[in-house]
Amino acid sequence: MKAEILAVGTELLMGQTVNTNAAEIARMLAEIGVGVYYQTIVGDNPQRLEEAARTAVGRADLVIASGGLGPTEDDLTRETFAHVLGAPLEQHEGWAQRLRELFARRGRPFTGNNLRQAMVPSGAVLLENDNGTAPGIYLQRPDVVVVLVPGPPHEMRALMREKVLPRLARELAGSRQAAVLISKVLRVVGVGEAKAAELLEPLLSEQENPTIAPLAKTAEVHFRITARAFDADEAHRLIAETARQIRDRLGDAVYGEDDTTLEKAVGELLVHRGLTVATAESCTGGLVSHRLTNVPGSSAYFTGGMLTYSDALKVSALAVDPALIAQYGAVSEQVAEAMATGVRKATGSDIGISLTGIAGPGGGTAEKPVGLTFIGVADQSGVLCRRFQFWGGREQIKVRASQAALELLRRRLLGDRNG
Amino acid sequence: MKAEILAVGTELLMGQTVNTNAAEIARMLAEIGVGVYYQTIVGDNPQRLEEAARTAVGRADLVIASGGLGPTEDDLTRETFAHVLGAPLEQHEGWAQRLRELFARRGRPFTGNNLRQAMVPSGAVLLENDNGTAPGIYLQRPDVVVVLVPGPPHEMRALMREKVLPRLARELAGSRQAAVLISKVLRVVGVGEAKAAELLEPLLSEQENPTIAPLAKTAEVHFRITARAFDADEAHRLIAETARQIRDRLGDAVYGEDDTTLEKAVGELLVHRGLTVATAESCTGGLVSHRLTNVPGSSAYFTGGMLTYSDALKVSALAVDPALIAQYGAVSEQVAEAMATGVRKATGSDIGISLTGIAGPGGGTAEKPVGLTFIGVADQSGVLCRRFQFWGGREQIKVRASQAALELLRRRLLGDRNG
Repeated sequence: MKAEILAVGTELLMGQTVNTNAAEIARMLAEIGVGVYYQTIVGDNPQRLEEAARTAVGRADLVIASGGLGPTEDDLTRETFAHVLGAPLEQHEGWAQRLRELFARRGRPFTGNNLRQAMVPSGAVLLENDNGTAPGIYLQRPDVVVVLVPGPPHEMRALMREKVLPRLARELAGSRQAAVLISKVLRVVGVGEAKAAELLEPLLSEQENPTIAPLAKTAEVHFRITARAFDADEAHRLIAETARQIRDRLGDAVYGEDDTTLEKAVGELLVHRGLTVATAESCTGGLVSHRLTNVPGSSAYFTGGMLTYSDALKVSALAVDPALIAQYGAVSEQVAEAMATGVRKATGSDIGISLTGIAGPGGGTAEKPVGLTFIGVADQSGVLCRRFQFWGGREQIKVRASQAALELLRRRLLGDRNG
Repeated sequence: MKAEILAVGTELLMGQTVNTNAAEIARMLAEIGVGVYYQTIVGDNPQRLEEAARTAVGRADLVIASGGLGPTEDDLTRETFAHVLGAPLEQHEGWAQRLRELFARRGRPFTGNNLRQAMVPSGAVLLENDNGTAPGIYLQRPDVVVVLVPGPPHEMRALMREKVLPRLARELAGSRQAAVLISKVLRVVGVGEAKAAELLEPLLSEQENPTIAPLAKTAEVHFRITARAFDADEAHRLIAETARQIRDRLGDAVYGEDDTTLEKAVGELLVHRGLTVATAESCTGGLVSHRLTNVPGSSAYFTGGMLTYSDALKVSALAVDPALIAQYGAVSEQVAEAMATGVRKATGSDIGISLTGIAGPGGGTAEKPVGLTFIGVADQSGVLCRRFQFWGGREQIKVRASQAALELLRRRLLGDRNG
């Protein structure tokens, strides 16, 4: 099966938005054994979009187009493919009704333009989008499958994962090739990509089925294990064996699988131990708490936090001794420890975690440069603090600091459990 | 002049590398008034690369190909374009000599493959690459200009900036067409994409120069104004006039331009008014504070925040009357107001902003469904509260709530200024 990805949008063509969707879709297709032969970007121009759609439909077995499904006049993907495929648009009553209700609930006017998002080419399946108003469209023809997905990455991603890939996999299973392709991601923290890859040699380079693909993220590395087999049981068996070999080599650095984020892994440990946590953040400005509370059910263990940006608030909200700040500075091991202890006490939580650092771009000195961060963890057995030197821009430093704080918390919870 | 960008490389096609070069080249071309009409990605496959090269040369006035100029067998861009253009490769003695010297200096063996990087299509100009072994190639034909640049972004960037753009600009100056293309983005909040587009009719559909392109983001819309003119002054004049017309129609809903985020716009208003702000977040778990503190220099106006996830903490940290929580529930107008007033007082800030809601997926009831959020703002003139019903998954609801809180704060700051 030869696939072509068509990304639609003048903002992509002019380079104002980088085309990350095409790369992500290509990686998803690789997981189910579909190779991408062309990627094309066109703007919101009727003639050129039609030409690109015609070319793609003519030369590929699978065309995935992303973008141009919005409610305005320059969103042309739906209309253009309907025209090229000779499949007139029909109103999908279920989706039209859902849009009307949605707009009524939000108290927003529902205009004729909005109804365009309920139009579906004749013979196509509407794929419900739980994250936006533009549904996906899946049109199966004898010689080509055409899939339209919305441009916002989180909408595209959910639709592709939940609706499009399973359909395509079923389609492929009809053919004679080993048709099951199953992946699992192992998520690794605290070990860099190069070091992790070194630890995994020769496994990494010799493995053919399953394959192991490393993917570097900010302050973590993912290893995607993909097995090809005749049935799912066999694929899962292959994956389990490879996952075991990776875990043997990397140990606790593997913190989770698939969509288990670090904050979710930490949350599971907290639930398992029956412990609560509170945060005292300075330089990260709420990011650690934001991440912890992204996890559904986090109110069971996250009691709250104090964002003590100012020194005065460190004293009034966390009972940090002002003499410590005067003597060592707000960015110091002593203040980080006092913050962790203070927030634990103020919130009546089992664990207090604190961060104080310099996120930049201003505020750095030769002695305390931008990126310097102290992270403290306090629990019933006492308080510990670690010093970090992060790099990058302000937002990168915040992300790296939040990652280090969650990892420190995870290590403490693991240590407790093991010890 | 119609340009096409061709990115060559199997790693791009499979999505292992995101195609940032094409976006960057498109932005560079826009600066000198060249519009990109197509972007194509092909792998290192001889037939498909030839087909893509032929198509591009046939339909564009300018073809810029990046990648595939390395020394190995699967680097085919040079050979393919030489073949397609009927311009046989000739050895460039100067570059061959430079390569030989370079390899000798580094003590590396110089093989026949390395010499491939000194081959240039007949009639083309070699553009010296100061950052790598693959030179750029510039071939001027009566009907098309073909430029080949290496794939590593820093090599591509330097060659484009220093060698290619000046040549193209000279070329354009010889023709009569307008050669400058400049863009500005207006960022809009509090009005949906469809509604905003409606308010801008007929401006949106009738505008030809500048063009206006809407782009939907989560809980905001961007309008990109792009003007084409003979010089930068004229382009800026055209943009200013269109921006004025948009602002006339959308008013204060336009919160910023270009890369000014909503949190940055709020920050600028706070600095301008000389006011400080503190947050009391429940359902958003720190996201509002995280966004506010993503802005460099935010410590000048952000004093801190209280993430009062638990009811007990709402009482102890913000002095919310427990009777209010008992009577109305934690997610209520009364508690939101008490939180805003409480955090303002606890932190000694000019403004307190509060959020209490149900981020989901659990915790909703018929009376108080998932997504219900109360946002309060307290300042010296008193406290106000607004009720919102957000939709989407947990993280989406958090983002939409943070957006609404920042917008409410912005409105309050604008009202203060105007009143």
